[in-house]
Amino acid sequence: MNDQKDIRENCAVFGIRSSKDIFTDAYYGLYALQHRGQESAGIATYTNTNSDKGEINVHKDMGLVSEVFKGVYLEGNVGIGHVRYSTTGSSEIKNAQPLTINYAKGSFAMAHNGNILNADELKRILEGRGSIFATTTDTEIIAQLIAQEHMKTNDFIDGIKNAMEYLKGAYSLVILYDGKVIGVRDGWGFRPLVLGKKKDTYVISSESCALDTLDIKLVRDIKPSEIVVIGEKLESYTGKKHKISHCMFEYVYFSRPDSIMNEIPIYDVRKKMGEILARESPVSADLVIPVPDSGITASVGYSKESNIPYSEGLMKNRYVGRTFILPDQNQRERSVRVKLNPITSEIKDKKIVLIDDSIVRGTTLRRLIRILREGGVAKVHVRISCPPIRFPCMYGIDMQTHEEFIASKKSVEQIKNEIGADSLAYISLDGLIDAIGLPKEKLCLGCLTGDYPIKKAKQMKLG
Amino acid sequence: MNDQKDIRENCAVFGIRSSKDIFTDAYYGLYALQHRGQESAGIATYTNTNSDKGEINVHKDMGLVSEVFKGVYLEGNVGIGHVRYSTTGSSEIKNAQPLTINYAKGSFAMAHNGNILNADELKRILEGRGSIFATTTDTEIIAQLIAQEHMKTNDFIDGIKNAMEYLKGAYSLVILYDGKVIGVRDGWGFRPLVLGKKKDTYVISSESCALDTLDIKLVRDIKPSEIVVIGEKLESYTGKKHKISHCMFEYVYFSRPDSIMNEIPIYDVRKKMGEILARESPVSADLVIPVPDSGITASVGYSKESNIPYSEGLMKNRYVGRTFILPDQNQRERSVRVKLNPITSEIKDKKIVLIDDSIVRGTTLRRLIRILREGGVAKVHVRISCPPIRFPCMYGIDMQTHEEFIASKKSVEQIKNEIGADSLAYISLDGLIDAIGLPKEKLCLGCLTGDYPIKKAKQMKLG
Amino acid sequence: MNDQKDIRENCAVFGIRSSKDIFTDAYYGLYALQHRGQESAGIATYTNTNSDKGEINVHKDMGLVSEVFKGVYLEGNVGIGHVRYSTTGSSEIKNAQPLTINYAKGSFAMAHNGNILNADELKRILEGRGSIFATTTDTEIIAQLIAQEHMKTNDFIDGIKNAMEYLKGAYSLVILYDGKVIGVRDGWGFRPLVLGKKKDTYVISSESCALDTLDIKLVRDIKPSEIVVIGEKLESYTGKKHKISHCMFEYVYFSRPDSIMNEIPIYDVRKKMGEILARESPVSADLVIPVPDSGITASVGYSKESNIPYSEGLMKNRYVGRTFILPDQNQRERSVRVKLNPITSEIKDKKIVLIDDSIVRGTTLRRLIRILREGGVAKVHVRISCPPIRFPCMYGIDMQTHEEFIASKKSVEQIKNEIGADSLAYISLDGLIDAIGLPKEKLCLGCLTGDYPIKKAKQMKLG
Amino acid sequence: MNDQKDIRENCAVFGIRSSKDIFTDAYYGLYALQHRGQESAGIATYTNTNSDKGEINVHKDMGLVSEVFKGVYLEGNVGIGHVRYSTTGSSEIKNAQPLTINYAKGSFAMAHNGNILNADELKRILEGRGSIFATTTDTEIIAQLIAQEHMKTNDFIDGIKNAMEYLKGAYSLVILYDGKVIGVRDGWGFRPLVLGKKKDTYVISSESCALDTLDIKLVRDIKPSEIVVIGEKLESYTGKKHKISHCMFEYVYFSRPDSIMNEIPIYDVRKKMGEILARESPVSADLVIPVPDSGITASVGYSKESNIPYSEGLMKNRYVGRTFILPDQNQRERSVRVKLNPITSEIKDKKIVLIDDSIVRGTTLRRLIRILREGGVAKVHVRISCPPIRFPCMYGIDMQTHEEFIASKKSVEQIKNEIGADSLAYISLDGLIDAIGLPKEKLCLGCLTGDYPIKKAKQMKLG
Repeated sequence: MNDQKDIRENCAVFGIRSSKDIFTDAYYGLYALQHRGQESAGIATYTNTNSDKGEINVHKDMGLVSEVFKGVYLEGNVGIGHVRYSTTGSSEIKNAQPLTINYAKGSFAMAHNGNILNADELKRILEGRGSIFATTTDTEIIAQLIAQEHMKTNDFIDGIKNAMEYLKGAYSLVILYDGKVIGVRDGWGFRPLVLGKKKDTYVISSESCALDTLDIKLVRDIKPSEIVVIGEKLESYTGKKHKISHCMFEYVYFSRPDSIMNEIPIYDVRKKMGEILARESPVSADLVIPVPDSGITASVGYSKESNIPYSEGLMKNRYVGRTFILPDQNQRERSVRVKLNPITSEIKDKKIVLIDDSIVRGTTLRRLIRILREGGVAKVHVRISCPPIRFPCMYGIDMQTHEEFIASKKSVEQIKNEIGADSLAYISLDGLIDAIGLPKEKLCLGCLTGDYPIKKAKQMKLG
Repeated sequence: MNDQKDIRENCAVFGIRSSKDIFTDAYYGLYALQHRGQESAGIATYTNTNSDKGEINVHKDMGLVSEVFKGVYLEGNVGIGHVRYSTTGSSEIKNAQPLTINYAKGSFAMAHNGNILNADELKRILEGRGSIFATTTDTEIIAQLIAQEHMKTNDFIDGIKNAMEYLKGAYSLVILYDGKVIGVRDGWGFRPLVLGKKKDTYVISSESCALDTLDIKLVRDIKPSEIVVIGEKLESYTGKKHKISHCMFEYVYFSRPDSIMNEIPIYDVRKKMGEILARESPVSADLVIPVPDSGITASVGYSKESNIPYSEGLMKNRYVGRTFILPDQNQRERSVRVKLNPITSEIKDKKIVLIDDSIVRGTTLRRLIRILREGGVAKVHVRISCPPIRFPCMYGIDMQTHEEFIASKKSVEQIKNEIGADSLAYISLDGLIDAIGLPKEKLCLGCLTGDYPIKKAKQMKLG
Repeated sequence: MNDQKDIRENCAVFGIRSSKDIFTDAYYGLYALQHRGQESAGIATYTNTNSDKGEINVHKDMGLVSEVFKGVYLEGNVGIGHVRYSTTGSSEIKNAQPLTINYAKGSFAMAHNGNILNADELKRILEGRGSIFATTTDTEIIAQLIAQEHMKTNDFIDGIKNAMEYLKGAYSLVILYDGKVIGVRDGWGFRPLVLGKKKDTYVISSESCALDTLDIKLVRDIKPSEIVVIGEKLESYTGKKHKISHCMFEYVYFSRPDSIMNEIPIYDVRKKMGEILARESPVSADLVIPVPDSGITASVGYSKESNIPYSEGLMKNRYVGRTFILPDQNQRERSVRVKLNPITSEIKDKKIVLIDDSIVRGTTLRRLIRILREGGVAKVHVRISCPPIRFPCMYGIDMQTHEEFIASKKSVEQIKNEIGADSLAYISLDGLIDAIGLPKEKLCLGCLTGDYPIKKAKQMKLG
Repeated sequence: MNDQKDIRENCAVFGIRSSKDIFTDAYYGLYALQHRGQESAGIATYTNTNSDKGEINVHKDMGLVSEVFKGVYLEGNVGIGHVRYSTTGSSEIKNAQPLTINYAKGSFAMAHNGNILNADELKRILEGRGSIFATTTDTEIIAQLIAQEHMKTNDFIDGIKNAMEYLKGAYSLVILYDGKVIGVRDGWGFRPLVLGKKKDTYVISSESCALDTLDIKLVRDIKPSEIVVIGEKLESYTGKKHKISHCMFEYVYFSRPDSIMNEIPIYDVRKKMGEILARESPVSADLVIPVPDSGITASVGYSKESNIPYSEGLMKNRYVGRTFILPDQNQRERSVRVKLNPITSEIKDKKIVLIDDSIVRGTTLRRLIRILREGGVAKVHVRISCPPIRFPCMYGIDMQTHEEFIASKKSVEQIKNEIGADSLAYISLDGLIDAIGLPKEKLCLGCLTGDYPIKKAKQMKLG
């Protein structure tokens, strides 16, 4: 990924229940999930260890976890948390999560990772029933749907199950209700959700790396269509099933390499992508160089398979981040140099394999290759560890600029010329599937093939 | 380096003169030098393109470059800048640089990287002459000494030369005086200082990576004892000479790998350290794994030389940084897990070579190895790309805890046992020198050998 | 009022519609209403001048108007705003207003000043109908009730009228709906609400002082039970009527003296209170001295009527405000001295009449009198321009500590002794009513008499 | 004063020595002096109660006392503090005080209120001796001069005395040296400085209101030319004497009305000014109305003498302050309305006497009178409690715009016409002097008469 602004994950969710205060764990858990969202962060807690049960406490704000929770402490032995992706200049604090709602049967807090395809339709239907919304988010639609169905059925879990009948799209949810933490994963299993345990502490998390940070053992994935309830004991229910469709881009880019997802370590997948790329598109070269950080693991695999030495030929300025502000707006041209700098002594007169996970618009890569050539590189062979992305994602990934995807309009040869590479190859679709190690039919490959797991929604009717 | 807090660089300096406004370049230049100091940042500018010459403008504050200069713009075609290292909770704004002073012969701004050994003595002597100080920094001592000597000699450069006769220690200076930028490097050449040029723009910088960011060509190092004056034309003078003594730790840790120092690329040195380590201390293993980020380049070299595959077995949380605050002070034990997470699938049942650049107290490494063993690693062979540090630095590196250097009290065998490694080896002193590629007598190796370039200062007498 | 923390107003509302951008006017309007709430501020705007109608823009945050809107600008020719009272340490951003909601018939933004007596009952009823709440505020209950009734009746104004049938308590509302600003005042007229106009600009405001700031002419009060709609033309509707019950404490303390309310200038009322106090409780004295700022206007009246000279015998530190933080928590005793300082030369050996608008707990006044005596005052005759407050307010005034009202447990004689005054007199109830100039039956005097306009709510049934 | 930005005080100083920690007292002391400066605040402390004497601690920053010291605590039983006046947008942190300096004989911290007339000359002389300056402030010149003279004489007090021989201008100083607090007041006594005591605590302050806040008894003024040393015991020395010249404007405007200065209560002076104005310039009117807050006390006096009732006819928005930012720069015209609002019911058809302490440019007053006329006032008779200011102040008051003083170019009749008043009268010079109660020859009346206490400085020669 040359430009992290072009494809973004929506969020991460986290839930925990223990016999003692969980705030510090929730804080560190979200810290480990920070890569999935830097716009806002929030935690909701509740105390159910004393007879005098209280209210749900929520603190949420715009900013990184370390900024939002500076000087904050929330009491409680049950809690959920959320981080949200970054947008430019937005201060829409009302969209920060967790969301809390109150209704006739009680109250709950909820956090969501995903995207509801039939949100507009559901909103109209709920409004037809009389629903009134405070935000314009999917999350509030899901929460109100659950609350309404709960009121119809008298059982909260039945409410969730009924809601799942209507929901089309990606949703990995954590809910704080009645002193319990409930994890819900949609029937397609688009977005990840895992369960961990250590002694009397249970954790639900978007990624397993958050468990490692807390020294909590990964138990298993929460299954597509599963509802896991963490109360005095652990209970599991099954909601609406669909065709399993795990997002392949979690393996390619979003998840941290140290996470394990659907029982498959992300790191292994990315390394294997590099190996397969090396077999599919070999090239005679002196060095394998990643675009940091997104291309590193595939480069390790490519190097291993090809026996071409791995090298850090590009240095990344570690301080380029959320607070990076260009004081002079006219100087965007130099932005690549500020972020990445070639190690001239290493690349001079060398034939290099330059590896990244994707090409979005191609402008960043074109500038980077120009800088490498100015640094004296002999040949630049670009290898991409994911097939060309040509179609928009509909399940929770904000690909703002899909209209501008270079691969949706140009051939590989044309792209090679445009970025100025000596050769360009993408991993094949089969190669990708092979690297992931899941059956093709269990993957969502919509952004690559245009063949989406959920067909155009027919007109629905809620009871 | 397991714990970046244990050994720290003092600062970086930057100077620039052009025919047009230089603020944006100074901003990006400091940005590229941010790794040398995160406590405070400052820029001083001056306009000498119009007849109506003005004052020196200074903006400096606590914080990162991006924070300090948010919304700030300083006019001027000549400027100098500075970043300073980070300390916990300090708000000593008065120590931020550049420092400006006014006296009978005019005024100048100055920024300093280094440490003056005879600062106390010089201060006493200057005070004896009647000097009055607003701060307690070395920098003010140097500035006042230059100003006093200037007043005696009537020529600013002669003032600098005279001052250099008295100064013992490390000082790479940039000075903004009379519309000129002056770079000064002490006669030992402890700290780096380079010169760059592109068209009518000249740049002086602690490291060459700042030149690359600005697309400025590296011309050469400023030589030990050299005074470079960038005015309408470039002039070079020579001050007090001493035995050349380049700091070896710039090559080991401080400088960015993409910088070139004393004509030697840092990246090449670090890679070679890994190669030499592999030859000096080979071991049968499955993977070479760096402690990120400090061990990465040496690992690439170790892997290449040993033919043991390179692997990212440890993931670093990229969001752990300056703003990282432990909300629960009792949980420092978990700090390693928050920063670093092993990739279990990669390391399980594997014999690994774990590479870092140094061991300070050993506590972090001991915890890290315990985590790796919990992750199922078979063997952990630790290799360190610098010989044991046993003595304090006196020339600008803040090794707060030199009393606690594990190597100053324990043998390699004892350290191995304490950190729980299966084997431990440091690069040899000869290996280090070989990797750097400079003659031993041109290096400062004081912190390794206790043999310092500057002997105990005798009583001095200033005229 | 000796301690502004003891009795507090809830909020102020503001609405405006013009042919051009109204943000600056809304900003200044809220600025003039800042005394009614310092906790949070918010503005919602909408543009209906172009065919391409957009969304409602909202910006709200904790803090003073000048803090919340630093660097903010919202486009739009229609808008509403709100300021909310201050609480200690609360950061409940979700309670900031205006509130926006979306439902089947559209969306609106709303701001509220008041307190709904039957909020819990309405909430239960609405929840019974299926309502789901995002906050726990009265404001959301009113908004959802209006939205639900709107959905039943198809006409927004009918929705408001129907909602008014159920609402018991104080509510002065501004609503931004369909490019119109709607002002609603409850049938009792507890809280104020006025209408202003200048050319094509209409303004609705809690107090007329906001109109003066904008150079907008005060047209009239919005009548109890009236619904005023500002669209292309001005329309007026009538909702549920009740017995008119204007809050007497608006005249005594809350409103700015330069406001005109129910056609009566606040300043005149307060001055008259002083005059009546002088007639009812005359005393031989040398000076009339107000407790600043709350006792100033009554003191002017007392002085005029009694011919005892007015004097500023107490100086207030103008910098004691929202940001005042006691660095040493043990030093609260000195808080009176920090805020108020007697002018010794003025009061020494003098018999003074000390005038304030109310006594809450009496502790501040006791300390103040002690300080005055230390300053050499001969006699302190306390006169209070409001009868003793003995009962809680139920209509929008947050008298947190009504349990601790000194007057609810002690006689005037006992209070006199406790505060250490030489004499103490309150204005009579008849005197208060006479000063206000409205018939007794049109005033809410509940906190004085315990006789509330709204009797204990009977069980309600919503359709 | 219609516009507080037009004439400004430079600063206030505060010093304290006790047997226990003094930070809280220093904090509150500065809080009470906040009206003399809102730009920056600072405190320096020192502990001399233990044998292990430490360094001087300083904390200073831009902002109000409550902002600068939020969360800050400095240990120590001796301390000095400073507040500095406000300028627009300046962030010159280096000019904040106290200033600390180190030299051969030790170190001291110093804070200054005043203005040195021969600063440039002294700077040149000191630079000639070799002095080097870090700032461009008077304060550093005074400090360096004291330090240099100290080095010559070996006794710190002699150093101060010698420095006073050279210093021409206004300086009230507090110095923290060797665990002592030293107060110095120039030989003219331009700016105030008082001494207070309670048990073992001594305080030096610019105004006595700070003593009242701390419940410290005012002992006496520090005399012009006096040096007061607060160590284990109190000592007094005498420095260079000059013709006593107390600033009359301290009585007119700067000082808080509850302060006592040169044994004269400010409040009494201002009230008497009103009385004298009433006798000198009587007028038939219905009400006496102050421009708040600057005209209040004189109005009380005018009312008393004339028997015309006092009235608050103008309300001031209490929230207009340092944080007031006009979001729309084009709307400065409305700024008067935002700050001040007439009470129409009170002034309608009334003849009023409008009282303020001065007229600077006249623009604000012109707008105010226009607003009053729009409010229906019958006649506006303006009375000013200070004679016309026609000349610049040279002793510490920043009258930026003296060139624009309306009174320096226009007659009283012309000013009356320009501001649109029905009549205008200033107090006479004799009236002013009479009100103050000091002999004319002991007052500095330079800004009124152009006759300055210090004649044009002749060329000086420092030994």
